[in-house]
Amino acid sequence: MPAPRTIALDAMGGDHGPEVVVAGAAISLVRHPSLSFILTGDETRIRTELAKHTTLARKSRIVHTGTVVSMHDKPSQALRRGKGTSMWLALEAVKAGEAHAAVSAGNTGALMAMSKLVLRPMAGIERPAIAALWPTVESECIVLDVGANIGASARQLTDFALMGAAMARALFHVERPTVGLLNVGVEEIKGHEEVKEAHAWLKETQALPLDYRGFVEGNEIGQGKVDVVVVEGFAGNIALKTAEGTARQIGQYLKDAMTRTTMSKLGALLARGGFRTLKHKMDPRRVNGGTFLGLNGIAVKSHGGTDALGFASAVDLGYEMAESDLVGRLGADLASIQATLRLRAAEPGGAGPDGTRGGQPRAAEG
Amino acid sequence: MPAPRTIALDAMGGDHGPEVVVAGAAISLVRHPSLSFILTGDETRIRTELAKHTTLARKSRIVHTGTVVSMHDKPSQALRRGKGTSMWLALEAVKAGEAHAAVSAGNTGALMAMSKLVLRPMAGIERPAIAALWPTVESECIVLDVGANIGASARQLTDFALMGAAMARALFHVERPTVGLLNVGVEEIKGHEEVKEAHAWLKETQALPLDYRGFVEGNEIGQGKVDVVVVEGFAGNIALKTAEGTARQIGQYLKDAMTRTTMSKLGALLARGGFRTLKHKMDPRRVNGGTFLGLNGIAVKSHGGTDALGFASAVDLGYEMAESDLVGRLGADLASIQATLRLRAAEPGGAGPDGTRGGQPRAAEG
Repeated sequence: MPAPRTIALDAMGGDHGPEVVVAGAAISLVRHPSLSFILTGDETRIRTELAKHTTLARKSRIVHTGTVVSMHDKPSQALRRGKGTSMWLALEAVKAGEAHAAVSAGNTGALMAMSKLVLRPMAGIERPAIAALWPTVESECIVLDVGANIGASARQLTDFALMGAAMARALFHVERPTVGLLNVGVEEIKGHEEVKEAHAWLKETQALPLDYRGFVEGNEIGQGKVDVVVVEGFAGNIALKTAEGTARQIGQYLKDAMTRTTMSKLGALLARGGFRTLKHKMDPRRVNGGTFLGLNGIAVKSHGGTDALGFASAVDLGYEMAESDLVGRLGADLASIQATLRLRAAEPGGAGPDGTRGGQPRAAEG
Repeated sequence: MPAPRTIALDAMGGDHGPEVVVAGAAISLVRHPSLSFILTGDETRIRTELAKHTTLARKSRIVHTGTVVSMHDKPSQALRRGKGTSMWLALEAVKAGEAHAAVSAGNTGALMAMSKLVLRPMAGIERPAIAALWPTVESECIVLDVGANIGASARQLTDFALMGAAMARALFHVERPTVGLLNVGVEEIKGHEEVKEAHAWLKETQALPLDYRGFVEGNEIGQGKVDVVVVEGFAGNIALKTAEGTARQIGQYLKDAMTRTTMSKLGALLARGGFRTLKHKMDPRRVNGGTFLGLNGIAVKSHGGTDALGFASAVDLGYEMAESDLVGRLGADLASIQATLRLRAAEPGGAGPDGTRGGQPRAAEG
């Protein structure tokens, strides 16, 4: 019997606000009946939606506010409007220990900035990252960073590896998740010293709670070659968007091909069970939700334009990570690695200890 | 009536050597009967293959060599083995004016290094790039750089824009191709000053032989939003490989879905015309070939593992670029831009001229 978990929902976030957020929460509640919710935003609009879902209404508490972060606000503007907004209040609920995770379909940049400010990065983590679930031929993998930062030092890439591994343990229930560094195939060309340095560190460092498998290429992500794919945020975001675009493009090709002739149409009609399976597999709503990793609390970003089913996936994700105590586990991992590395660094011939973590690549930047 | 064109083929390149290269050339010759070929490599093996294609044999000349670049050679090793190899001799034929383009399915890093050495970068171009043809919903677009370099300065990105536009004019026959800079959606996050600076320059600079459309995201490449997508080589290579991987993954989903039930199988059988269309659309051999842009000559890299049909696409690509005088056109573009910018820089209030191109972003690195 899972412990009761509370998720804080930014009811005003996304293109549709309470309508989608409340309906999504209702779907997730059916799947996880132990859940309860804190809904932040316009009380009247939230009540109107809750009236359609009586079970959910009983398990929800509303924190009213009249101010919201708009989809067009820059993070700096959002932070100025700050404390009053529905987004901020959802994160505050996590910080105060009233909720185990926050979910918002609002403005990504604003959510990232506010999450950092409210939840603060974990000790030993330089930069949080956004992790995405990525469908593979067999099941799913985790890709990070998909856009929290542009560029990453070797040290930050190794942090991402640890954070991604902790998330994989939480979601996939494997003790030592396989991890790969995304790189380009032409090994010989110059550049990206950060990636090479992170590779050397991950390869050499024993006692990590992960199984490092070396470099992977873009075409191997979807093959499920590893559980966790690590990449800096610019290339990671481009890879994610490119995969989404390619899937949509092929869907279009398929539709065109199946409606070209009467015979094709008839065939497609007979095979509609198969097409339904395919559509389900390719449904982006199944894996909706980017997770902010490396903060003292869980924040999940849902796609802004998603519907109730997609928002429910983001709520599920928040639930699973709360349920598996992602933050606690990651904290324990980091502490244990630091202890091991300090020990090794103190040995004769070991690398000299630096301020935070002996032997780990130093950040190239602040 | 197109002018006779000669393509130099590295007959030993790729996983299969002369077998695939010669068969591919034969296919391309049917499409472009004005073509003739120089085949570099092991004469005996090439003759054995040519014996199967009498028309091609009449239009081919063999330049024998016993040394080859292996798929596992590092560029430095390949350069040491250097001049004797089949790859080098194919490039030499272009340099000597005996061939209008070289095509090789050999080792990418080695081909890039040798091309730079033999053909030399064009005046005014800091770094060559590899351009890929990318299938879109409507037709095709050009994406560069897909892996010649890692990272790019603002100046190099604007060079890529000019080079890509010249290729688009040559292949797509549009006077002012649309160009976009690949970027991440979350505009507010810090970083990639190079991309922002290139954006500002392309937006402000009049008289460019292209129609600059601003930033595009990964999901917009396949939508065909622009004719040319510009990106540095690390993210570009990852995007390309990710799209290939996603296409293969969905192909696998589709196959699984269509063989799940007897009804699906029957439907798929009836719709096989539609599936054939789809398969053709998704066939990676249709757009095989990365073009090295920015050199004083055309070099095309074919996939190493492709078959005759795929190799023929790479030969076609070399032919089309030779036919449209890509190198000459790009040279004229660069000269005209330099003249315009020098003129403008000399005006009162214009940006001060620098050594090569007034007003264009200066390279951050050598």
